[in-house]
Amino acid sequence: MPVSEFSLIERYFAAHRFQRLDVALGIGDDCALLLPPADQQLAITVDTLVAGVHFFADADPESVGHKALAVNLSDLAAMGATPAWATLALTLPQADEPWLAAFCRGLFALADRYGVQLIGGDVTHGPTIVITLQVHGFVPPGLALRRDGAKPGDGLYVTGTPGDAGLALAATFGKASVAEGHAGSIRARLERPEPRIAEGLALRGIASAAIDISDGLAQDLGHILERSRVGARLEVERLPLSPALAASLDRKAAVMTALTGGDDYELCFAVPPERTLQLESSAAGWECRCTRIGVVTAEPGLRLVRADGSALHLEQRGYDHFG
Amino acid sequence: MPVSEFSLIERYFAAHRFQRLDVALGIGDDCALLLPPADQQLAITVDTLVAGVHFFADADPESVGHKALAVNLSDLAAMGATPAWATLALTLPQADEPWLAAFCRGLFALADRYGVQLIGGDVTHGPTIVITLQVHGFVPPGLALRRDGAKPGDGLYVTGTPGDAGLALAATFGKASVAEGHAGSIRARLERPEPRIAEGLALRGIASAAIDISDGLAQDLGHILERSRVGARLEVERLPLSPALAASLDRKAAVMTALTGGDDYELCFAVPPERTLQLESSAAGWECRCTRIGVVTAEPGLRLVRADGSALHLEQRGYDHFG
Repeated sequence: MPVSEFSLIERYFAAHRFQRLDVALGIGDDCALLLPPADQQLAITVDTLVAGVHFFADADPESVGHKALAVNLSDLAAMGATPAWATLALTLPQADEPWLAAFCRGLFALADRYGVQLIGGDVTHGPTIVITLQVHGFVPPGLALRRDGAKPGDGLYVTGTPGDAGLALAATFGKASVAEGHAGSIRARLERPEPRIAEGLALRGIASAAIDISDGLAQDLGHILERSRVGARLEVERLPLSPALAASLDRKAAVMTALTGGDDYELCFAVPPERTLQLESSAAGWECRCTRIGVVTAEPGLRLVRADGSALHLEQRGYDHFG
Repeated sequence: MPVSEFSLIERYFAAHRFQRLDVALGIGDDCALLLPPADQQLAITVDTLVAGVHFFADADPESVGHKALAVNLSDLAAMGATPAWATLALTLPQADEPWLAAFCRGLFALADRYGVQLIGGDVTHGPTIVITLQVHGFVPPGLALRRDGAKPGDGLYVTGTPGDAGLALAATFGKASVAEGHAGSIRARLERPEPRIAEGLALRGIASAAIDISDGLAQDLGHILERSRVGARLEVERLPLSPALAASLDRKAAVMTALTGGDDYELCFAVPPERTLQLESSAAGWECRCTRIGVVTAEPGLRLVRADGSALHLEQRGYDHFG
């Protein structure tokens, strides 16, 4: 007997019974019904992963489930929002139950860690796996980390070690090789990115602007600069390179990968000088590194400078789906 | 020069400047920021259309844009919610600007009519067009039209004329022919469904349960019965057949199409006897028909009866993506 769409949905999605108090009605009706907190703004973001574009069709489905949610939570993190609810639109070539079971394990393990409830979705048939997750979170009015608040003189920072996912991708395509002993950690950075939720929340009231690095540090920082109508000087020697990246590539290639490799899901943010101490005090307790990489300038454009003051030029700033 | 993802998004989606007062931040940051009304519940639904499955790859893109939003608004209608915001996740094989322009015309024309603002989205590259729309609306606590409130003795009703979209689909596949003079109206019912938003709002406080008919009247009514733990007797002679459907098919085929043809986006709902007058008074002002088609019973299951009391059996209740 063919497995019907409805029993599939019921079995894999509705069966996961985590229940938030602000969900009046979850999966199973025409709409979900939610009770957003009266004193906060609602933050909403949506991201799609396509098989063969954003992940390999034969990728570990548990990792795919993790990543589909992680990339969305990363957008909430970049806004300083507390995660709350998610919906899932899933297009599948066939009702592949082992795939679905593993996908759900990855998705729900991450959802549970951040108190996120799946409140609805749509399962459709199509030639390729396409996963669209939408997540909803809350942020107090005035405290959201927007892209348009950076001012000249603000310090520029990045969490973690950008470039690791870019190295993993390059290695997958045979364009780079990962140094011995680092394959596992580099692969995890690509397949199981950790959304910087705690760091985003900590940056409320500290950062003047923030973005998550999904399309490459240089390109995403460019969005902050454009929106804030400012420029930046980025000191490339300050870029925090992971031991894996530093061991795998020569210095120049490592720096380029940190600047233009996508899929990192770290946060890049600006902090006014008067809040530097507050940031340092907060970041001392973070699980990930927090590194000052440059400064916001009145002069527009992104200037990359070496320690000796000479300029570095990028051939490519980041990833463009239709470029 | 290739058109970049960002200028595409900017040109076609962010350029449409309708601005709701409850949108603090729309397209262009990591998240949108919204101000949901403090005294209402938030209703959320998501639906996906896949080229080659839900529409033909060469279908008129303006109609596709209309329908992608309409099927989602229909879910809000079935919940009795006022539409507010939408997000769009769009996967495209290439940056086809004429297609995008026409798609946006259809989408925004409908969005503007219902005061819906597009607040965010994601444009990705993939082998097939996949469109996921998510819409958000508001409904006062206790007034949402859920599926689980039908009680024995409630009257069963349907808006409009179910089966028209099913006939259009059958005609497209050469399995039926549409009677002369009706091709345009039947095609419009499939390609440009009108969400029953006004009717859904009017049913607040009147209907005990409601659903929209996207997978066929019999199947979707089945969801109300299952959720409400009741049954129903549906009098097939009462089914409101459109002149086009009645002229195109013999009586039996027309009834079967009205019962099992999907894609209608009409509302099916239950009304307690003491609110029948209230419903009739309200429905007198509706733009579409409102027809009593049966009654909710304590005995579970859906029984289809002819005027002479004899039973009618369905071979198939509706559409199942993986059936």
